[in-house]
Amino acid sequence: MSGAVTWRETATDGPARAGTMTTPHGEVRTPAFMPVGTRAAVKAVDSDDLHRVGAEIVLANAYHLMLRPGADLIAELGGLHRFMSWDGPILTDSGGFQIFSLEPEIDEEGASFTSVYDGSPVRLTAEDAMSIQERLGADIAMALDVCVGLPAPRGKVEEEMRRSLRWGERSLQAHRRDDQALFGIVQGGVDLDLRVESARSTAGLGFDGFAIGGLSVGESATERNAALEAAMSALPGDRVRYVMGLGDTDGLLDAIARGADMFDCVIPTRLARHGRALSRRGDFNINKTEYRADDSPIDPDCPCLTCAGYSRAYLRHLIRTSELSSHRLLTIHNLRYLLDLVADTRRSIEDGRFAAHVSEVTQARVRPLVS
Amino acid sequence: MSGAVTWRETATDGPARAGTMTTPHGEVRTPAFMPVGTRAAVKAVDSDDLHRVGAEIVLANAYHLMLRPGADLIAELGGLHRFMSWDGPILTDSGGFQIFSLEPEIDEEGASFTSVYDGSPVRLTAEDAMSIQERLGADIAMALDVCVGLPAPRGKVEEEMRRSLRWGERSLQAHRRDDQALFGIVQGGVDLDLRVESARSTAGLGFDGFAIGGLSVGESATERNAALEAAMSALPGDRVRYVMGLGDTDGLLDAIARGADMFDCVIPTRLARHGRALSRRGDFNINKTEYRADDSPIDPDCPCLTCAGYSRAYLRHLIRTSELSSHRLLTIHNLRYLLDLVADTRRSIEDGRFAAHVSEVTQARVRPLVS
Repeated sequence: MSGAVTWRETATDGPARAGTMTTPHGEVRTPAFMPVGTRAAVKAVDSDDLHRVGAEIVLANAYHLMLRPGADLIAELGGLHRFMSWDGPILTDSGGFQIFSLEPEIDEEGASFTSVYDGSPVRLTAEDAMSIQERLGADIAMALDVCVGLPAPRGKVEEEMRRSLRWGERSLQAHRRDDQALFGIVQGGVDLDLRVESARSTAGLGFDGFAIGGLSVGESATERNAALEAAMSALPGDRVRYVMGLGDTDGLLDAIARGADMFDCVIPTRLARHGRALSRRGDFNINKTEYRADDSPIDPDCPCLTCAGYSRAYLRHLIRTSELSSHRLLTIHNLRYLLDLVADTRRSIEDGRFAAHVSEVTQARVRPLVS
Repeated sequence: MSGAVTWRETATDGPARAGTMTTPHGEVRTPAFMPVGTRAAVKAVDSDDLHRVGAEIVLANAYHLMLRPGADLIAELGGLHRFMSWDGPILTDSGGFQIFSLEPEIDEEGASFTSVYDGSPVRLTAEDAMSIQERLGADIAMALDVCVGLPAPRGKVEEEMRRSLRWGERSLQAHRRDDQALFGIVQGGVDLDLRVESARSTAGLGFDGFAIGGLSVGESATERNAALEAAMSALPGDRVRYVMGLGDTDGLLDAIARGADMFDCVIPTRLARHGRALSRRGDFNINKTEYRADDSPIDPDCPCLTCAGYSRAYLRHLIRTSELSSHRLLTIHNLRYLLDLVADTRRSIEDGRFAAHVSEVTQARVRPLVS
């Protein structure tokens, strides 16, 4: 534990909590959503756009950055904040998710990948993950873990949960920078006993904050929520809790209801590049014929640059003529939608009306779209 | 002639001139460069970006817009300004350039295309070009002309120059909107007699302003400059003069030196999407290995968003990892470079130091890059 990042509670409403996370690059109000900038860039937008949509912290990926442009180059250029021109807090993922998505060979020391760029062999141990993230210099580094896709046999989930614990311990021992926090990652799939054991043991190692990993990888919402509750029950109340890979409206509200503080997800930005708009009244594909002559913005109540200036008909035209701007304009809106959702949710906790807020959000989404 | 657009001279320095063009959507200081938004969008940027780089007028293309989304739809949605969320002046090209680039069948009535989208037949007459542009509702419409690629036999150039005159006359007769200006287009290739005849005859028809078309289509700079001089000599001094398709640094300065006021070109935006940065010290491809660890911006003296925030090393990283943002960030810089060049040139004319300015710009560009 470095103490570089702290979290203090500012309000609760049942298990739901609001708070402030303090980092070397400023404060983050929680619940918080982190836009995903895998390669030191949130796809289709720039740092100025991120500030304007209300992002307070962004995520980058150590695995991708160690391949291109390389951790040493980013260190030489003054670190990730300066490299990507983002002066707010940054969290780097360790490469654990790539152990799930790229399926490398795993042994007790680490994981052996093949580079997505040139097919060359890439080795990643817990110690490597620390060294890389220290050179990148994010405010928050993540321990290296093993994320298991679901469904999976209990034996496999248990084996990798215990390996994640050992790697977490090695990550802690290897981590040196005292201006960078290190978060541990709870695993255990949807087995509640394993989740409790993982949370208790990870908490016992003494990280600055805790992530709950291994969710949104094939389980049902019911299974996910039960796993979240089990993990939360064994985590300390004075550290931030980050649910990895979660970013749909219902999932966020479910997790916040169970005491989660922080999230990341590629969904809002990826959907944007596929023409799908998030909205308080429900999500929709703007490429549909019904929006051909629709002069209204995606959401008349949204204050983003896209909704302030552009109609559904124009956005549809951009998509149909393959204009690059459509990706950015929809990304800006979708991020604004999710960041506003999280901010509204935080205020509802502060006002003691979280349950009513969830009910309002849910009911508005099933109403027909106005246009 | 509708009188919807006027131009008045504010300063001269030899044949070079500075002025103000007044349109229904505001004033444009000349010399002026128009970013090209073929499909009602300047590729990779939005209207807010265009304002911030200093664009005062943009160009859209009637031929592309009549195919998608259609002139009637844009009219139904309140016209092109509202559709693309650009409240400044707009000029629409008539489709004459597509007669050069898409090589349709031409007869005396008009041109017969095959749609680039679905292969269906598309007919475009001088009267159609007026009707489409009136529905789009730009501040400035262009007469339909025939642009001939060079080199071409004199007989062909002469034939199409005369056809352009007849189409120009029909365009004038067909044009109805009195809140939209109509510009005529001078043709004649690099034959000086034909250029003079075309300019004199086009001027005689009485348009609100004059374009010089049929250049940057295969001729040398020397040929182009001679053709420009010939055309300028026969155009009235109290109307704006727009050189179509010109947008490289040397070409702009050459044309301004001969009395040109306005320009459009896809080069700065197209080069941006290929990783090529324009700069006061010369253009360069930012994807080169020498910029791998270069922490400096494209141009340390450039005030654009890109140069304010991002290093060459970061921009190179975005290109090498296929991040969409590279297109926008380089487009913003390249447009800013060209718009600043034109603004600096205007000031040099006002200050009576145009020749010294041209010399400074030219000398700076051959100096080695500082980095």
